[in-house]
Parts: sequence; structure tokens; C-alpha cells
Amino acid sequence: MQQVQKGDVTVNEAVEKLRHLPYEDLGFARVDHHRHIRQGFPEVIYCPGKTAEQIAQIFSALAAKGNNVLATRAEEDVFESIIKTGRFPGARYEKSARAIVLEQKEVPSSKSILPIVTAGTADLPVAYEAKVTAEIMGQRTELICDVGVAGLHRLLSHIPKLQKANVIIVVAGMEGALASVVGGLVSCPVIAVPTSVGYGASFEGLSALLTMLNSCSSGVTVVNIDNGFSAAVTATLINRRIDTKTD
Amino acid sequence: MQQVQKGDVTVNEAVEKLRHLPYEDLGFARVDHHRHIRQGFPEVIYCPGKTAEQIAQIFSALAAKGNNVLATRAEEDVFESIIKTGRFPGARYEKSARAIVLEQKEVPSSKSILPIVTAGTADLPVAYEAKVTAEIMGQRTELICDVGVAGLHRLLSHIPKLQKANVIIVVAGMEGALASVVGGLVSCPVIAVPTSVGYGASFEGLSALLTMLNSCSSGVTVVNIDNGFSAAVTATLINRRIDTKTD
Amino acid sequence: MQQVQKGDVTVNEAVEKLRHLPYEDLGFARVDHHRHIRQGFPEVIYCPGKTAEQIAQIFSALAAKGNNVLATRAEEDVFESIIKTGRFPGARYEKSARAIVLEQKEVPSSKSILPIVTAGTADLPVAYEAKVTAEIMGQRTELICDVGVAGLHRLLSHIPKLQKANVIIVVAGMEGALASVVGGLVSCPVIAVPTSVGYGASFEGLSALLTMLNSCSSGVTVVNIDNGFSAAVTATLINRRIDTKTD
Amino acid sequence: MQQVQKGDVTVNEAVEKLRHLPYEDLGFARVDHHRHIRQGFPEVIYCPGKTAEQIAQIFSALAAKGNNVLATRAEEDVFESIIKTGRFPGARYEKSARAIVLEQKEVPSSKSILPIVTAGTADLPVAYEAKVTAEIMGQRTELICDVGVAGLHRLLSHIPKLQKANVIIVVAGMEGALASVVGGLVSCPVIAVPTSVGYGASFEGLSALLTMLNSCSSGVTVVNIDNGFSAAVTATLINRRIDTKTD
Amino acid sequence: MQQVQKGDVTVNEAVEKLRHLPYEDLGFARVDHHRHIRQGFPEVIYCPGKTAEQIAQIFSALAAKGNNVLATRAEEDVFESIIKTGRFPGARYEKSARAIVLEQKEVPSSKSILPIVTAGTADLPVAYEAKVTAEIMGQRTELICDVGVAGLHRLLSHIPKLQKANVIIVVAGMEGALASVVGGLVSCPVIAVPTSVGYGASFEGLSALLTMLNSCSSGVTVVNIDNGFSAAVTATLINRRIDTKTD
Amino acid sequence: MQQVQKGDVTVNEAVEKLRHLPYEDLGFARVDHHRHIRQGFPEVIYCPGKTAEQIAQIFSALAAKGNNVLATRAEEDVFESIIKTGRFPGARYEKSARAIVLEQKEVPSSKSILPIVTAGTADLPVAYEAKVTAEIMGQRTELICDVGVAGLHRLLSHIPKLQKANVIIVVAGMEGALASVVGGLVSCPVIAVPTSVGYGASFEGLSALLTMLNSCSSGVTVVNIDNGFSAAVTATLINRRIDTKTD
Amino acid sequence: MQQVQKGDVTVNEAVEKLRHLPYEDLGFARVDHHRHIRQGFPEVIYCPGKTAEQIAQIFSALAAKGNNVLATRAEEDVFESIIKTGRFPGARYEKSARAIVLEQKEVPSSKSILPIVTAGTADLPVAYEAKVTAEIMGQRTELICDVGVAGLHRLLSHIPKLQKANVIIVVAGMEGALASVVGGLVSCPVIAVPTSVGYGASFEGLSALLTMLNSCSSGVTVVNIDNGFSAAVTATLINRRIDTKTD
Amino acid sequence: MQQVQKGDVTVNEAVEKLRHLPYEDLGFARVDHHRHIRQGFPEVIYCPGKTAEQIAQIFSALAAKGNNVLATRAEEDVFESIIKTGRFPGARYEKSARAIVLEQKEVPSSKSILPIVTAGTADLPVAYEAKVTAEIMGQRTELICDVGVAGLHRLLSHIPKLQKANVIIVVAGMEGALASVVGGLVSCPVIAVPTSVGYGASFEGLSALLTMLNSCSSGVTVVNIDNGFSAAVTATLINRRIDTKTD
Repeated sequence: MQQVQKGDVTVNEAVEKLRHLPYEDLGFARVDHHRHIRQGFPEVIYCPGKTAEQIAQIFSALAAKGNNVLATRAEEDVFESIIKTGRFPGARYEKSARAIVLEQKEVPSSKSILPIVTAGTADLPVAYEAKVTAEIMGQRTELICDVGVAGLHRLLSHIPKLQKANVIIVVAGMEGALASVVGGLVSCPVIAVPTSVGYGASFEGLSALLTMLNSCSSGVTVVNIDNGFSAAVTATLINRRIDTKTD
Repeated sequence: MQQVQKGDVTVNEAVEKLRHLPYEDLGFARVDHHRHIRQGFPEVIYCPGKTAEQIAQIFSALAAKGNNVLATRAEEDVFESIIKTGRFPGARYEKSARAIVLEQKEVPSSKSILPIVTAGTADLPVAYEAKVTAEIMGQRTELICDVGVAGLHRLLSHIPKLQKANVIIVVAGMEGALASVVGGLVSCPVIAVPTSVGYGASFEGLSALLTMLNSCSSGVTVVNIDNGFSAAVTATLINRRIDTKTD
Repeated sequence: MQQVQKGDVTVNEAVEKLRHLPYEDLGFARVDHHRHIRQGFPEVIYCPGKTAEQIAQIFSALAAKGNNVLATRAEEDVFESIIKTGRFPGARYEKSARAIVLEQKEVPSSKSILPIVTAGTADLPVAYEAKVTAEIMGQRTELICDVGVAGLHRLLSHIPKLQKANVIIVVAGMEGALASVVGGLVSCPVIAVPTSVGYGASFEGLSALLTMLNSCSSGVTVVNIDNGFSAAVTATLINRRIDTKTD
Repeated sequence: MQQVQKGDVTVNEAVEKLRHLPYEDLGFARVDHHRHIRQGFPEVIYCPGKTAEQIAQIFSALAAKGNNVLATRAEEDVFESIIKTGRFPGARYEKSARAIVLEQKEVPSSKSILPIVTAGTADLPVAYEAKVTAEIMGQRTELICDVGVAGLHRLLSHIPKLQKANVIIVVAGMEGALASVVGGLVSCPVIAVPTSVGYGASFEGLSALLTMLNSCSSGVTVVNIDNGFSAAVTATLINRRIDTKTD
Repeated sequence: MQQVQKGDVTVNEAVEKLRHLPYEDLGFARVDHHRHIRQGFPEVIYCPGKTAEQIAQIFSALAAKGNNVLATRAEEDVFESIIKTGRFPGARYEKSARAIVLEQKEVPSSKSILPIVTAGTADLPVAYEAKVTAEIMGQRTELICDVGVAGLHRLLSHIPKLQKANVIIVVAGMEGALASVVGGLVSCPVIAVPTSVGYGASFEGLSALLTMLNSCSSGVTVVNIDNGFSAAVTATLINRRIDTKTD
Repeated sequence: MQQVQKGDVTVNEAVEKLRHLPYEDLGFARVDHHRHIRQGFPEVIYCPGKTAEQIAQIFSALAAKGNNVLATRAEEDVFESIIKTGRFPGARYEKSARAIVLEQKEVPSSKSILPIVTAGTADLPVAYEAKVTAEIMGQRTELICDVGVAGLHRLLSHIPKLQKANVIIVVAGMEGALASVVGGLVSCPVIAVPTSVGYGASFEGLSALLTMLNSCSSGVTVVNIDNGFSAAVTATLINRRIDTKTD
Repeated sequence: MQQVQKGDVTVNEAVEKLRHLPYEDLGFARVDHHRHIRQGFPEVIYCPGKTAEQIAQIFSALAAKGNNVLATRAEEDVFESIIKTGRFPGARYEKSARAIVLEQKEVPSSKSILPIVTAGTADLPVAYEAKVTAEIMGQRTELICDVGVAGLHRLLSHIPKLQKANVIIVVAGMEGALASVVGGLVSCPVIAVPTSVGYGASFEGLSALLTMLNSCSSGVTVVNIDNGFSAAVTATLINRRIDTKTD
Repeated sequence: MQQVQKGDVTVNEAVEKLRHLPYEDLGFARVDHHRHIRQGFPEVIYCPGKTAEQIAQIFSALAAKGNNVLATRAEEDVFESIIKTGRFPGARYEKSARAIVLEQKEVPSSKSILPIVTAGTADLPVAYEAKVTAEIMGQRTELICDVGVAGLHRLLSHIPKLQKANVIIVVAGMEGALASVVGGLVSCPVIAVPTSVGYGASFEGLSALLTMLNSCSSGVTVVNIDNGFSAAVTATLINRRIDTKTD
């Protein structure tokens, strides 16, 4: 009954490779060094729910390989405890993005520019998380801020720039309508990031999330509320494929 | 301790008037004839949950006073059972609005035009309910259909018309973003009607409802999902005040 | 296939006008000076999610044009940092409304009085936000406080006043039933503001919101939970149309 | 460590009594004859989810004891299959209440009248379920129909009647505000029954349910959506205690 | 068309009486003195959302009439600011119930005992709110604590006591199953108070609320989450009717 | 950096084994023959969302190996189309469980009895799904029906039987309290199956689900609403481990 | 105050272009011919909420331009009424995708293969919608069906194929975990389509939707429940950029 | 009508035993000493909602019997106040599990090892609660941390260990997919613990909870969000049955 498939050799190799991917066991965390290899990622730490001590340990393990390291949703005191170790003089704290960045390796610059568009000023922290994440992966970004649909004229000026992009990140809270409007103006994919900005019936970002999921503009896909990081990774994956494509 | 207030006489009169407002007890319904007087309404029957027989009885009681009558959310067979009575040859069924209309009294035409704007074709039944309701109250309406935000250029042509209105009804399902965009283009109130059009994460209109409630365009107020009737009544109340204002 | 439409000239003009509306780019915000022109608004800043520094910068940019400025949901320390600049001696903090107000231009008084009705004492902050917003736009307001439906006699005394209004704002948390009751007593539009007042199954204002959306009194429209600002803007838009109507 | 308590004898007796309460095992149901004894109930069958055959069997088992029997939420064909047995010529189908009633035993009439108040005509089926349930337990009821808060004058006429009751059932869908208004007018307990009447943001009765739970009128308690049966049982339990109280 | 009704005189009187019920306008609150008369209530202040100053003012206005006063959900500092006025030496703070109590008038003791049953120790604050509320209205109460359904034997000992009551209050969080179990053991009404005790899928009391609303034990009615006050008022209304019934 | 781990050989073997598990590709389905081997399962088909034709094809592929086959949530016409093939004369339709059963291989009987307890008669279809599933895996079951907490005495008689079990399945809709009560009476794991039985605030089983998740009786775990199948599989896995344990 | 921006000429051109995009007004719909030009789309009709007659009219208008046409969520009778016109002999009905397809223009084949992966057989209709949509835009697709995470070995065989793709569509209902697992195995973007497949706590696809939004695998973005169409459009937009990229 | 059942003697005994189970009434709590006997539990205190004083009193009452005591969800200051009594020198605070542990009695070690598997580092506190709970009941546990599905290779290494277990606890937040993947790899029951780890659309653990409830891997049952305690108790109950089984 064993099913025979063409390309079995390849399958064996793939599973073997998967089986032997390198990681490091810190007890409380399995530090995953291959991610860098597999996805062209920096090493990344998502901080919430980890103690400052755990973060510092993971940070050290990751940085020891000479890779770039990004710690997201990091409070300032986490950065300070990393700095105190004296081992990472190059690390910097991106306050508006709540991110710790350590760049140890050069990454080639993207050919195209990645626009990150926000509906309002209060959406900036999420947009900055996207910006810092995209930049540590080599993306050249442009932040277009506060062009929500209640004042359409502010957006119209940016149409040419948007139409030149290969992929666009749209960050919006409250009614979250900006993603649909941008999606209707361009012919590239739009990654929509709902934010928890708002009050009352925004229900901590649920309103913007639903709006974006129901977008009539096809080409719009959605990530979790406030997840600027994931939007930036996806946008980078797309841009890299385009940049590195060889026919 | 009894509180003494200025204008007590007026208060007494008002409560007395309230107390003596006319209605008719059909047993299963209290038919409210004063509504016509109080709000310049036609007599209205909301059909769901009532048997065809009950609707016919209420319809007869209302029509007997010579007023205009509107039955909303009416299935076609309800209309047929009313027609079968032979008493209301002038009654007509507005299929697309699911409404029965009996016009027995002339109502003065509105001075301004009430735009009813829809995001998509599937929003039409709700828009038609608004249209029929507004028209039986004398409003001159204009339906602007299928101008959702995914194709902004379809909306731009209508800006001049929209900017001339005193109040606008916007009907949209799915992401419901149209109300915000229209609200940002005009300086009059916008009444937003979320519709149950959509699927999946539209959650039967919840998505559009939340979008509209969170609108960043001030001047946007919201009614219940699919409630074209209430939007039309409110718009009419506003337009009438403007039309009849004497300085 | 290009569609030709009557009034194309007007359309061109409208879009051109839209395209050239003035705004100012502060980097983190696009300050929108035309709103004042378009909607007769003061310049408005919604504070949450913005740093005190950002707010002060936007405030300065807006005030520099000589317009009235309103900052909503402002904590007291934001006000203090604005005062410290020494540039706005006329600015005042409306504590109960959590608003900063700078009046630099006279606005004509409304002809009618705008009643702002609350169900309970705890609804006052939202009602005050509505009051301050309406007043900076020239509305004469009257606050009718603590007349919730559990003690109907408290409301009855105010019927004459309510019946004289062109539009009424009703602010209520918990069961939010007041909007329906008021809506049934008057023949003008009622703008219902659900508040987050309550506990347990009020679910942060959801209960009052749903009640108001389901109101059987037609003429009731709803804004976001706690959104006194938007209710006041809408009410003002309506009243202005009536006040300035020329036949 | 065994805890000794006063009144242990009584406790033993109570548990023993509980242990030996009579019921009958039909395999798919345990027919509970003691309920009649314990709560002065008729025997009751809740029909949904049971096959017509199962209902008929339970009905027979219950009726065999000579007690009154009530089957709620019964479709007409269930009644027909019971009638076909030829064993219950006295059974009748209350169509508007969707109930099958078999009265075999006289029950003493209540001293007071139980008002059952509905907001609209569409709430009638739930009100009738309450009415039929209360009457089979001997309550004298009065149905006050279609007095929702959007037309307060229709309710005012009934104040004297309401103020004479020992307990009142209020049945309302949509915004469900009627329970609060009635609760504020009387000094007896009000049992609020939210109904699934409505559409859109009524969310199948959720809106009315939340409104009633958040009622500011103390003395209002709530049962499940559309649960006229439970409201009637509770009201009867209260009235019986008052009727049979001996000092 | 004016409807003529029997008992019109009574109706006129009732509405007149309603119209003239006494209250006092403090500007931010309408203090409702008649509630004492109408429902045999103490004067009651629900504290959340009111400033300490507002509470103190309302408290003074209420106490000035010589009635008993109850302030619920009161933080200790509110009590202190009331005490500091020096005018209410008899006021006391019931810490476990978060209530301020001022007893100035004797209230007759209830004939029966009102059991207040809790599922767990963490439900005590809500149970104490019910206890203090019931006692200021003259009810003799007995607290039966920590008898949740996971240890049924703890409940069995109390069956005789429960079966003697005219009405029972059951307070439970988490799964909230206790109300159903108690309801099945007794033949009097059970007022179920869901509490916000729990975590995760208790969703701040939603779980217990739904459980209680779906109770299969008829005779169970439900109040808002954590609303010990309303449960106590309803229970008292029932007990008073029974106590004062004269045949 | 490659992590070296003890037992690498075993790991290699395990992954290899996983890699080579047999399945059969029908194009629209991958039929998984190893499940039988891995978990001692019969072959199982979950029918909803599959066409009758697809089910028949999968059924044939599974039965061809000589294993027992179970199709859950199967409509009667699916059974008929399987029967029509003439290839499975031994297949039978368990109507009350909505299951098709084909027993081709003997399975050893369990040593202990698995009680399946239901709160009401309407929960029977889910209980039968559990029963049929457990029995095809060799479990000896006993159905204890209609012993919901509103009539505790019906449950008490079954305590000895319940206390002898190694694991118990409790099936309940509406308030779902039965799982907690049973869990408190026994010292074995209880698998709770919420059902969609109920109406209104049962929200299609959500109420029972939340109740069970919040159970204060430890030892209670929960499966999806109406998922009698999964409860039976888990119970069987537990019982088999106990039955086959060799020291 | 008018803001001067670099590239104003381009902006003017862009807005002008937007303003003059061609569409056709059918009264009930604005048929948008430029979409074809702008996004390389076929003309698309989303059928639900439109009458068969409306769909046929839109279909005709779209097809008249010689473009490819795709009608999604189309019932078979809609197809029949289109066929009856006799004007589109080339139109075909893709039953499993519920789509009507008219190919009139050749579209160049994609260079890479687009894998469409489903968790179960019941997810097929959504996967087919994605497949048909992608193929009419020239994508070469491969359907990998029924490889849900409960049987990981079925997925492992497909790793090499998945790792060769530029973008992957993952379609899954119930727990929706497949998107995360695939996302962790590849270094290209994954577009996750939650489906409404499931029952009980799947809440019509909500469970899968939330799972996908919370994916720990970065590179995963999400579309609306059952929205195979939008996933295919986005995947095509990405693949086209890669295919047509010229350095 | 009294139903006669076989084994009545046993039933009598069982109910009698239930009736006389020992507990101790502290006024605010009923301390349940028999739980130790009945379920082989330590004495357990769930701390939230109890004052430090109440906890200390219950702790003392429980410890006085010489049993092991476990206090869950305990803040550090609670531990300090227990230590201050000087009576429990052997008590220790397990910070990562937020638990107080007092071991006074030896418990036999389990024969098998209980794997506790977490998806991420942030899930550790819940996993530690499970670990501490299981260990005080004699279970030998192994924590396998940070093997979430986004990096499948980290999990593959642990397959042999997992396949040797009798029952497995899987702890996961965010998308919660790990339980399904593990469930598909093993043939023993999996107890899934959703955690509140995550943000945005994780809705405090709701996402993980729904994922786990919808698991396609049969054998997976679910406990409340963050309820490591209950998972450990259930796992222990299962393991004990297997360990102590005598044929």
C-alpha cells in the first residue's frame, strides 16, 4: 500500500535536511539558527512573555553567530540590560518601533522602494515596527503617514509613488478603510495591517481587521492586529523574489 | 421637595397631549395614528413576525384614515392578500424594495435632492427600501449605485452632486468603507447603512457596521444593518427642517 | 468606452479642487487646514496615541492659521505642555470634557438650542465632550442630565424643551434605552451616543450600542461608543444647514 | 474531622427524600413525576430535539398519572400524532403559543392578575407561551400587547393595571427597553423576556438580552431569549407564595 | 379616533402622580426621593463614574430627608470623604461589600430568611453586596458560602434550609452551575447572580451568565454579572409581598 | 552548531517511519491506512462537505483492506448509495448516531464499562455517535440518559456505576452543568461533550462549551461542540492503555 | 499654505488618469472595464446578491469587449441563463469551483507553478475557486489535497515541490493549522485561506481565521473566509511581478 | 411509581458516603479534606479572589491534616505571609509556576514519564503550573519547550519520547496548532492547554482555544485557557489508572 511517488529521492533529501536543521537548546528556548539561512531573515526575538534575562540570553546566542539580530516589542529596560553586558556596542534601540537592532552583516539593498502607508499618526508605532523590520532585511522603505480616507486629497498626491511599488504595506486602525482604497488604486499586492488604534466599537482593532478581511479590492491580504513585523517579512519575501529572479 | 420648574404649564400640556394621543387597539397590535401627525410619517408596518392576516388588518385600519401607508420587508404574498381584499386598488408592490406602498394623499416635494449611494449592486435592496421610504415622504432622491472604494474613479464623477446635498445616505456591505470616503468629501451629514452583504468575516453585516461606527469622518452616523427605512426617515426629518425653516 | 457624463466640467473642477486642498506635512502627521474651510470646523486633534510633543506641534501648526483649535481626549499634562510654550495664553482646559480649547475667531451663535440629554451622572464626561465640541462651533447647548428611563417622571418635565429642538443628542450607557424613549417623543433626528458606562454584561458599551442600533424609534442614528465629539459635529452640521438656509 | 451540624436529622431526611423521588425510565428519557409534587407544576415536555414518537411516549407516561400536561415548542404534527392515539381527547393545540395542553385536574385560580406586556406584535408567540404556561398553573393573565417605548403614550394608559400586579412579565425584542421603563413605573418584580425579534444588530435577541441585563430599574430579572415558559413558571411561583401565605 | 378606555380616571391620576413625583436637581444628578416611597427602597447611589465630590453631595441630599442611604461599589476613600463632613457619624463602611451604609430609620424585619448561596470564596464580595442591600431593607439573610457543584456533599447539608426559603439568591462565577442545581432542589424562585470570578474562557463572567440563562431548572432568573444589589432588591420585593399580604 | 542529541538513532528511525507511512491518493482525498495501525482505530470518514460519490469511493478504498470502517455524520442517502454498490452487505446504518458501520474484523472487548451520560433526551444523537464510535473500537458502553442537574435525584442512583468507571463521557447542551457535577462525584477523568442543544443564549452550544471549560471539577476536559466521536476515541485510548498495561 | 511637492506633474497625470478610467453604467451596476488593464485581471463578477438577469447583463457587457470573464459563486442556473442567450458558446461552468469561465483571449503561462494546498477534502470547493481564478490569469497550478496536520506524513512528501514555489496558497478549515506548518517549511509567502468547513466551535470559519492570523510563521498573510478568489489574485500578482521583472 | 433498581444497596451506600464526606467550615470557605482521599489529590487552593489572610487560613487548615498542599496562581507576597507564620518551614515558592508547594507526605513516583510540551518560551508559566501540579502528585515529567509548528524540525527530534508516553500535555498560545500536530504523531491522549500568550486576534487565548477544540487529531481534549493545573490533574488521573491497574 506504500505509495510510490516520482521524485522520492528529492523527498528523502528534503526531509533529511529538515531533520538536521541546526538549533540550540537553551532550556527555556530553542534558538533557531537556520531561519537565517532558510528565509534570509535576521535572527528575531519576539519579547513579550519572556523575562529580560531570557531575552538577553537568546540575544547573545543569536548574535554569537555573527548574524543580524532583531528583538521586537522590546521595552527600553530590556535594551539596557543587553547593553550592560558590554558585548553588543553596536546594538541600538529604535524607540518608536519598540525594537532592538543589531546589524553585524551587510544585506544588499532592495531595488524597489517599499511604501509603508498609515491612516493616522497613532498608527506610527506599528508602521515603525514594519519599517525597522524591512530595513534590517535590506528593504529601502518610504513612510507615508496620516493619509486616512477621511481626507482623500492627502492620499491622491502619493498615487504615482504607490503605483511604482512591487508591494505596499498599509497600516490603519479605527475603520481600517485605507487598505481597500489603496488596493483599488494599484496593481500590486497590498499587505494590510490592522492596528488596535481606536476606542469603543473598534474593539481593540477588531473593526479594522474585519474591514480589511472584507476588502473588495482583490490583492489585499491581512496580518494580525498590530503585526508590523509580519507584514514587513512578507513584503520583503516578495520583493526579494522579484529582485533576485533570474530567467 | 417637589421641584418647581419654569414653564410648568407647558409641561402639563405636553404630558396631557402625550397621554391623549390616538391609537387603535386591534388586540394583537396598537395602531398608532398620531405618528402621522407627529412626525409627518406615512403610516408604517414592519412586516416580519406578523402573519399575513395581521398585516392585512393593520393595513386596513391605517388606510381607513386616508393616510399614505408603507409596509416594509413585505413578501409578495402579503401584497397579494391585501390586493385580494379589493379595497386598495391603488396599492403597489415595490419588489426590489420589498415594500407595499399606498399613496392616498399628496406630499409636497423636497427642495433638495437626497443622494442614496451604494457600494455594490448587491446593496440595492436596502437602497431601494430607503428610496421608497424617502419618496413616500416627498423626498426627491437619486440613486448612485456601485461606486465602492475599490474603484475610486467611479465615485469621483459624483462629487459635485454629493456636495450639493443637505444629507446623504450611504449603503454598503462587506468592508463598508464608502461612508468614510464620502464623509470626507462633503460637509453635510452622512447616514451610513451597513448591509448584510458579504460572507465569511463580514459576519452578516457586523464588519460594515463596525467600520461605519469607527469612521474617522465626523458627520457620519449609523443605523442598524440593512435598515434603509430608518436612514430614509432620518434624512427626511433633516431635509424637512431645512425646507420648512422660516426665519 | 470612456463614459461621457453631463456636467463633466463641474466634475473636473471638483476633482481639481480636491487635489489641491491645502495640508501641511509635519512628517508624523498631515495637518489638514482645509477642514476648517470645508466643514466649518475648528481644527481638531484627537490626542490618544500621539505623544505630548506631537500634539503640541500639531496644535501649534493649526493655531498659527488663526483658527479655533480643539484637542479631544487630552490628558491634563498635554494641556500643561501646550501652556508652557507660552504661545497660547488663551487656551483653556475643559477638565470634565477632557478637552483643550483655543478660541481665536468668533463663530456666530446658533438660532436653536441643542439639547444634550444624559441617562446618568456617569455619562457626563461624554456629554461634556459633545457640549464643548458643539459650543466651539457656535451651538447654544442645554445639558439635561440624569433622566434615564428607570425614572420616567424626570424626563417628562423636559418634553416641551425637547420638542422645540431641531436635533437632539442622547448620551446613555448601561441599557441605553433613553434614545428610543426620547426618539418616540419628538419629531426631529436624535443622535444617540452609547457610553462605556456600566459593568458586566454592558461589555464596555456594547449593550448600549446594540440597544440604540435596534431602536424602534425611527429618526435615531448612532455614533461610536463614547464619541461625544462626532455626535456634536453631526448635530452642528444639521443645525447650520437649517440656520443658514436661504430660500 | 467529620463536621457535625445542627439539624442533622432534617438533613438526613431531605437527602433521603431526594434519593427516593419517583421517576420513570423510558430508556431515552427519565420521566420525572415528582416535579408535579415539588413545584406545583404540570408535567412539562420541551419538544425540540425529540422525535414525535418520543414526545408521544413521554406525553402518555405523564398523562397516565392524571396530571395536567404541557408540551412546549410543539409543531402541529406532534399534536396530530398525539391526537391519533385516541387516548387524549381533551388535549388541545395552542397554535399561537406552539403548545399542547392537556388539562385533567383543576388548579385553583390565582388571586391577582399577571400582566404579560409585549413591546410589539412580533413578540406575541413568546408572550402566548408565557400565557398558556401561566394559565395551566392557575394564573389569571392579561395580555397588554404592542406598547413599546417608541410610543410611550400607549403604555401610560396601562399604568394603574401594572401597579396593581404582584409580578409582571415583559416580553420585548429589538432594543428591549420596555422592561426598564416598566420596571421604573412599578414596585413589584419584573421578569424580562428578551425575544429574537429583530434583525441585523439584534443578533437573534442578544441586543434585547443585554439591554435587560443592564437595566437600571432594580427589580428586573431576566430569562433566556424567547423563554416565555420560564418567565411564567417564575411568576407563578411568586404569585403562589403570596396567595397561599398564612401568617 | 381617540381611544376610550375604562378606568380613564385612574389612568389620569396615575399619570398625574407620575408627573409630580419629587426629585431634586443637583445639576449633575437628579436625586430621586420618591423611590423610597415607591419601592420601599433606601436611597441608593451607584458610585462608579461619579467623583467623590459628586457622591458626597448626592449622599447629603439623600440623607437630609432622614431616609436610609446605601452607596454601592464605593471605594474606601469615598467613605472617608463622607465621614470628613462630620455630618453622618452613623455611616459605616462595609468593606467586603464595598458599600457605605447609613441607617436612620428602622425597617421591619422580614418573616422568612433569605439564603444567599455562593459557589466559591472568591464570589464573596458580590454576595456581601447582596447581603448588605437586603439587610438595609429589613431582610434577615443567611450566607451559605463555598458550596459549588464540584463538591456536591457540601451543598446537600443545606437542603432543608433552602427548601424553607421563599426566594434564594445564588452567586457563582466560573461555570455558574450552582444556580441550576439549587433550582432543581427547591420550589421557590432562584435569583442567579453570575460573577466575573474566573479566568480564560470565563470571559469576565460571560460563561456563568450564559450558564444561568440556559438553566434547565425553571424558576431561575438572572441579573447582570456581579449585580448583587439588584438580586437583593428583587428578592426583597418578593419577600415583602409575601410578608405583607393580607387576604 | 548542529545539535547532537542522545537517541539520535531512534529519532532517525521515527522520522523515517513517519515519512513512509502508507496512504493512498484518490485525487480529492489522501486515504490514510496507517491510522488503523497507529491508533488502533477503525478507518474513519467524516462525511460533511464530501459528496456521496466521494464518500463511497473513500469507503471502498478503506474497506478493501479488510479493516473496520466508520462513516460519521452520514445522511441516510449516503448509506443507500454505499449499499447499492452491492459490495458491503455487512454495512449497517445507525440512524440515531447518523453513522455507517462496517465491521469486518473482531476487536477485543474492553475490560471496564464506559458510561456515556446525557443531560437530556435531545442530547441523544451526540451520545449515540460516541456510543457507536466507542463500540466499533471494542468498548463496552452504558448509556445513562436524561439525568441533567435540574433533577439531581435522577443522577444519584447512578453514582456507584460512575465510580467504577475508568473514564466517563458526559454529553450536555443548554447550561452544560452536568460535567462539573459528575466530575465532582468521581475520581476518574471526565470527557465533556457540549452539544448544540438549546436556544437563545445557548448560542448553538457556546454556553455549554464555556461552562465545561470553566468547570471547577478538575479532571474534566472538553471536546468540540457535538463531537461525540472525538470523546469516544479519547476515552477508548485511555481505556486501552489501562487494559493492555503490562508491568 | 498649499503644499508644493516634487513630481507634481506626475501627480496631476495620475489623478487625471484615475478620473478618466472607463466604466459603463448599467443602472444597477457600474461595469469596470479598466480593471482588466490595470491589474491584468479578467473581468470578474461576484454573483451573490445579484439576480440571474443582472448577472447576465453584466456578463454580456463585459464579454462584449473581448476580454476573459469570470463569474464567481455562480449557481448552475445562472450559467444556464447565460448559455440560453446563445451568445457565449465558449463559456463553461466549473461546477466544483462554482464558477463560470469565458476565455476569449490567450494569457501567457506563468513560469513557476502555484501550489494550492488543502487540509481536507471538504476544503476543495474553495481550493477550486482559487485554481480556476489563477488559471484564467495564466497561472499553472498544482492542487495538493488533504494533507492536514493531523497526518503530517502526507505533507512531508510534498516539501520539495513547495520549496520550489514563489508563493503558495493554503486552504484549511477547522483548526486551520496547515498554513503555519507550511509557512515554517518554506521561504516564500504563504497566502492562507480559512474555510467555513467545520462545526461547533469552528464558528463558520472563525476558528481557522484566527489561527491563521496568529500564525507564528512569518510570511503568512490571510484573506477572508472561503475567499479562494482573492488568494488567487494576490498570488498571481506576485508571480507576475517575478515573471515579468526585467533588470 | 418509585423506580426499583438493581444494586439499590450500593446506591444507598454511595449517597450516604457522599452525604458524610468530611469538610471544615471556615465561614468564608468550606475546606474539603476528602478530596485528598477521593482523588489522590494534594489539598489545593486556587488563590485569585481570595485575600492573603484567607489563603493563609485555608492553607493552615489543610496542612494541619499532614497532607501535601498546593496553592496555585499565588503571588509572592502570599507565600511570604505563609512563611511568616513560622509554621511551614518546608513550604517553597515555585516562582515560574506561581505556586506554593508544601510536601509533607511521600507520593509514589509514576512509572511512565509525562511530557509537557510548549510551543514557545512565553508559554512556560502555564507549563510550569502543570509541571509542579503533576509532580506533587508523583508524576515524573519532562518539559519539552519551544517546539512550535513554525519550526517543525525542532519537534521531530522528540517524536520517540512522545510516542512512549501514556498521555501528553501540550501548552500553546497564539495559533495553538501544536496540539493537532502532536496528536497526529502519537497514539495516546493529548491534553491541550491553550494559553493567553499572543496579541491582537489571539483575543487573550481565544484563538488557541478554538484551534484546539477544532483539532482534526482525535484524542485531543482541551482545558480552559492557561489552566495548566487541570491538565496536570487529568494527566495524573490517567497515568495512575494505568500504573495501578491490576488484572
